[in-house]
Amino acid sequence: MPIAGQVAIIGSASTPFGVLHDRGYLELLGEAARGAIADAGVTQERVEAAWLGTAEPGVAALLGDAGTAVTEAIAFAPKPVTRVSTFCCTGMEAVRAAAMAIAAGEHELVLAVGAEKMRDVSPRGSLVARTANLTHPTLAKGRSAPGQFALLANRYLQVYGHELADLAAVAVKNHEHAQRNPLAHFRTPVTVEQVLAAPRVAEPLGVLDCTPTTDGAAAVILASVDWAREHADDYAVIEAISLAVVDGYYAGFFHGEPDYLGFRVTREAAARAYAAAAIESPREQLDVVECHDCFTITELVNYEDLGLCGRGEGVELLRSGATTAGGDVPVNLSGGLQACGHPVGATGVRMIKEIADQVIGRAGERQVGGARRGLAHTLGGPGVASCVAIIGAPR
Amino acid sequence: MPIAGQVAIIGSASTPFGVLHDRGYLELLGEAARGAIADAGVTQERVEAAWLGTAEPGVAALLGDAGTAVTEAIAFAPKPVTRVSTFCCTGMEAVRAAAMAIAAGEHELVLAVGAEKMRDVSPRGSLVARTANLTHPTLAKGRSAPGQFALLANRYLQVYGHELADLAAVAVKNHEHAQRNPLAHFRTPVTVEQVLAAPRVAEPLGVLDCTPTTDGAAAVILASVDWAREHADDYAVIEAISLAVVDGYYAGFFHGEPDYLGFRVTREAAARAYAAAAIESPREQLDVVECHDCFTITELVNYEDLGLCGRGEGVELLRSGATTAGGDVPVNLSGGLQACGHPVGATGVRMIKEIADQVIGRAGERQVGGARRGLAHTLGGPGVASCVAIIGAPR
Repeated sequence: MPIAGQVAIIGSASTPFGVLHDRGYLELLGEAARGAIADAGVTQERVEAAWLGTAEPGVAALLGDAGTAVTEAIAFAPKPVTRVSTFCCTGMEAVRAAAMAIAAGEHELVLAVGAEKMRDVSPRGSLVARTANLTHPTLAKGRSAPGQFALLANRYLQVYGHELADLAAVAVKNHEHAQRNPLAHFRTPVTVEQVLAAPRVAEPLGVLDCTPTTDGAAAVILASVDWAREHADDYAVIEAISLAVVDGYYAGFFHGEPDYLGFRVTREAAARAYAAAAIESPREQLDVVECHDCFTITELVNYEDLGLCGRGEGVELLRSGATTAGGDVPVNLSGGLQACGHPVGATGVRMIKEIADQVIGRAGERQVGGARRGLAHTLGGPGVASCVAIIGAPR
Repeated sequence: MPIAGQVAIIGSASTPFGVLHDRGYLELLGEAARGAIADAGVTQERVEAAWLGTAEPGVAALLGDAGTAVTEAIAFAPKPVTRVSTFCCTGMEAVRAAAMAIAAGEHELVLAVGAEKMRDVSPRGSLVARTANLTHPTLAKGRSAPGQFALLANRYLQVYGHELADLAAVAVKNHEHAQRNPLAHFRTPVTVEQVLAAPRVAEPLGVLDCTPTTDGAAAVILASVDWAREHADDYAVIEAISLAVVDGYYAGFFHGEPDYLGFRVTREAAARAYAAAAIESPREQLDVVECHDCFTITELVNYEDLGLCGRGEGVELLRSGATTAGGDVPVNLSGGLQACGHPVGATGVRMIKEIADQVIGRAGERQVGGARRGLAHTLGGPGVASCVAIIGAPR
């Protein structure tokens, strides 16, 4: 059977996200994995296989370079563990791969876990320094992520006649939301003035337009919906999970995106997910969204690329309050990457946990009343890979 | 449906393996992928998704760090491409993941491709120097692969009372086989005397006991057996494909293997594959084997761990001629890693292609008359991950 509608999330857990120099990669991974297993109400013995999402094993002494990190963290031998990496979509890819195994009937219960230590500094320097030294195709040319997304921001503001304050409003919203997320990296609200006054990273993006650099791990346990119906107290259903990949990573940022105003790859991934989940009007049919706000500008174009509004209408949607807590399609109630941070392998798993918690009705102070279906979205590469997951309540 | 017996290999291709400084990573990857698509007799448009196996993207400017390498190499956008990495099992893991998608019914036709440029030297030095510099858990302590397998070799020779010439006989056999493999890195036969006289790498292993360092790529196209039955001219069936992972990578080589005489992880992977494929007597039920002869000693213990003979009987099996061309269970007719080399991501895919070609009956000068079922095996980590695939002719 294909994944759509047949695979259930029966347990999930996340470590706190933050600067966790006092906790190792294996420790974080283990906490998330064991937490998800406990949350599912099963014993570890019953979990038959695992998928690991870690994007940058080189930072933490090659930990996460292969699935054996899971084996060691939770004493999982000799069960199979597969490591996947897809830039910033890495975590959601771990969930997608694990869901494939459930859909195939290869396993009854599986673990998907994402973990990343972003703050560690290896003997060869920081993450960015190290990858640049490795002749990273964009970083080695001085094209950092903020620098590349700054191109998008400048172009977007210029074409649509918006102001820096419109970008800042995204950071304000997501930091406000994060006050209700005990696991977020930053839980202090910020004002438009603070965002605008923050040190510039790459014009027009300042520090508070950017996701922080963060450590963390998150995990989910998957089973078939048939299994969940019989055995699980509560669960969420993966109505769709899609990956799209386009070219441009080696050719250069925005290759094939000549208008510099959005990301084809998100539109492709969303189209596939919406088709699988029979979603025709995302704004009406989604109750809650987690999207990849690596920079403030990214959230605005994500609104458009995900079809929550038309092209060029992102700022208008934000201003309407629709995407703020209490709005009709709240986005990044967790605080998003802006406030949670972005431990790459963990992010997509965290998002899926967040949406699953919403449709199960256990999202605490962040709960959207009556949430039945939500979306989680990651964008990686930058701009060359995107995962979109639609998570719903059981029918 | 689970994978076993339901997924078919309908096309395959491999680049020549060798020192390919004149050919880039994307070029090799593209040649293998396009070759497999052409061999399957389908158009690229019909291939819906891909899996990429590359273990060491840092050597080639991070090429292969995510699936977008496939996207760029063959203009595959916007289709999903997932990268997996599992040490030396990376290539076979790509096939396993792709098979999962077919078994799930997520896709009709998919590509699994493995590629590795091992000979490139990055600005930070060679592969080994670079990973050691990254605080690799074993290399950084001076424990190179030859050094670690030398421990196994010394112990094996001592316990069972064998000679260096018994190790050398593996290299002699596989180099002899490789004369009939036009894609092998080395096709010149070697003598026991040459193997014994070769420069020592790590006592008791000399240069000719070790797999060379090699570039290359290989690919397969998968479909359901139902699809293959209707549409394919010829195909092979994945009767089983399993991964086992045990701990020890971070804890240290041979953790949990106190006898230093074999690899539990291969035994675990084989047990799973044999159960799925209903194999009770591997020696009798397998017509041909490709196993992970990264060092001469490895092939001998693989015989034992794969159940082709009892523990401690590897040398006897080799001496009997059973594993030599013309024997009843020929091993590494391709030349194995000894003579083909070991471009990590490509190796497992190449092996699966080799066994598929055998059961289809198109293995050229290497063909085993009447071959109906074979096994491919990789060992990674070292000693912490193993993949075993059973490939059979259609029933």
